[in-house]
Amino acid sequence: MSRRYGIIGTGAIGGFYGAHLQRVGHEVHFLLRSDYHHVKEKGLEVESPDGNFTLPKVYAYNSPTAMPTCDVVILALKTTQNHLLPKLLPPLIQENTVVLVLQNGLGIEAEVAEVVGSQPIIGGLCFICSHKVAPGKIRHLDYKKITLGAYSPDYQPQGITPQMQEIARDFAATVIPINRQEDLLQSRWDKLVWNIPYNGLSVVLDATTNEMMANSQTRSLIEEIMQEVALGAKSQQRLISDEFIEKMLTSTEKMQPYTTSMKLDYDRKRPLELKAIFENPLQTALNMGVDLPRIRMLYQQLQFLNLQNLA
Amino acid sequence: MSRRYGIIGTGAIGGFYGAHLQRVGHEVHFLLRSDYHHVKEKGLEVESPDGNFTLPKVYAYNSPTAMPTCDVVILALKTTQNHLLPKLLPPLIQENTVVLVLQNGLGIEAEVAEVVGSQPIIGGLCFICSHKVAPGKIRHLDYKKITLGAYSPDYQPQGITPQMQEIARDFAATVIPINRQEDLLQSRWDKLVWNIPYNGLSVVLDATTNEMMANSQTRSLIEEIMQEVALGAKSQQRLISDEFIEKMLTSTEKMQPYTTSMKLDYDRKRPLELKAIFENPLQTALNMGVDLPRIRMLYQQLQFLNLQNLA
Repeated sequence: MSRRYGIIGTGAIGGFYGAHLQRVGHEVHFLLRSDYHHVKEKGLEVESPDGNFTLPKVYAYNSPTAMPTCDVVILALKTTQNHLLPKLLPPLIQENTVVLVLQNGLGIEAEVAEVVGSQPIIGGLCFICSHKVAPGKIRHLDYKKITLGAYSPDYQPQGITPQMQEIARDFAATVIPINRQEDLLQSRWDKLVWNIPYNGLSVVLDATTNEMMANSQTRSLIEEIMQEVALGAKSQQRLISDEFIEKMLTSTEKMQPYTTSMKLDYDRKRPLELKAIFENPLQTALNMGVDLPRIRMLYQQLQFLNLQNLA
Repeated sequence: MSRRYGIIGTGAIGGFYGAHLQRVGHEVHFLLRSDYHHVKEKGLEVESPDGNFTLPKVYAYNSPTAMPTCDVVILALKTTQNHLLPKLLPPLIQENTVVLVLQNGLGIEAEVAEVVGSQPIIGGLCFICSHKVAPGKIRHLDYKKITLGAYSPDYQPQGITPQMQEIARDFAATVIPINRQEDLLQSRWDKLVWNIPYNGLSVVLDATTNEMMANSQTRSLIEEIMQEVALGAKSQQRLISDEFIEKMLTSTEKMQPYTTSMKLDYDRKRPLELKAIFENPLQTALNMGVDLPRIRMLYQQLQFLNLQNLA
């Protein structure tokens, strides 16, 4: 049975995953802003090592109130736009609508819950390199997996929920692998181990991942910052092992030279996702009495650069 | 009685102070590199709020072996050139030559002592804004005071020594105020309170002092880094008070927008003085079991940027 999806934020993430869902037969409704007219006329285009494809006709909207309610709403905005959620989300919600949050950082699901109340919320972590290269055109470079974890207000592990199973089933016909995790909070912290050092330092040092890994000083600093992320996770009773950190380092060394998403935002003079990726983890740890000095210093530097960049 | 001075490094510091000494009648011998031919022909020129002046004729050299031995040798190279000292210093040394080290950072006098043995060494800390703007031409903007402190291998306070008094007497006829301090190590740490955060962050954040002080995040970070410098000083039984830190912050806020010397070096693609200003203080503290995480992170970032910049 085809289910109806709504995509809030049709960029490198929302456009890519939404296009794949439509391609295998799901009904997908795309909310757009600057690309609205182009996509309404020409549809969506995906370039990918898995094969290029075009969807000449998509349901395109420039206002959430024009959209139908959906079985699943995929939230794929940058978190810097989340102040718009009270306007964007409610028109798409019906009984049993699941909100799938494909955003980075910590504490995001709680913000969504403030808007949608007791609707089921799934956190989704995307491991993907993709960019929007032109209106309605997404270039997918590498990786694509989504990790799902169910949200509850106390962030206790919820196991594998029926809503997660249904979403996984919907993606089963696509090329996107879905990884179901019992503990969303653990998955969130796991991802921060990569996001905090690489996103942050790439902006401060104007550098790609491979440049930072090739220098022994920044490689050490990245590892020390990862250890601080592990301390933050520990303050919430989640374990980041030394082996996990070592795996992150060595797998990043093997990656192609990679410009992080935060660096791309910075170069395009867009606001950086500092609250979700830096402020919330820092505050969470601090609430448990744990100070993370290097991450805080990085956050201070980034706030300065972000303001200068937007001025 | 006129005394003979030798200036090693005739730039914004050595050229400025040497010119003032010659101007009041001392015999001054200048060692130069790239500006040698210009200065030999045209002399030195100083622009200053105290009044502009030119010395049409100076003793200029492009090799230390051509220079006479001196009563006082002023070492005013960047510390990144100190590997040249075994070649540069000995030809100027006679019995009782005093070496006055006008360089930034910690542990520099010990490096000089390795070259000159038991000759008296005075550490001098320059509080001055000046730049070389053209061959043989120095623009002095603000401040000019030199603080003197006598070196001993164990860095114990030596009090006010006869050599310090003689140098102060030589400067008495100039416009340069001389401040005599009993404890060189205290003065060195005092100066690091300013140099470490402002020099370091100005490079990493591509910012002037006033931009960093106007942002509450970087202002906090600067203060936290200053507190770490105080911990480093404490590891050597020197006290940096909260009042001293507060005074550094507020006086910097009142300064004109200022590009630090390290930022100028960076912009001119010159090597940064990282060993003297970062590595030596960090290592000194670490030897006493004191870790300074923010300063270390800043040093790691700077080493990365320095290498990229020189590549």
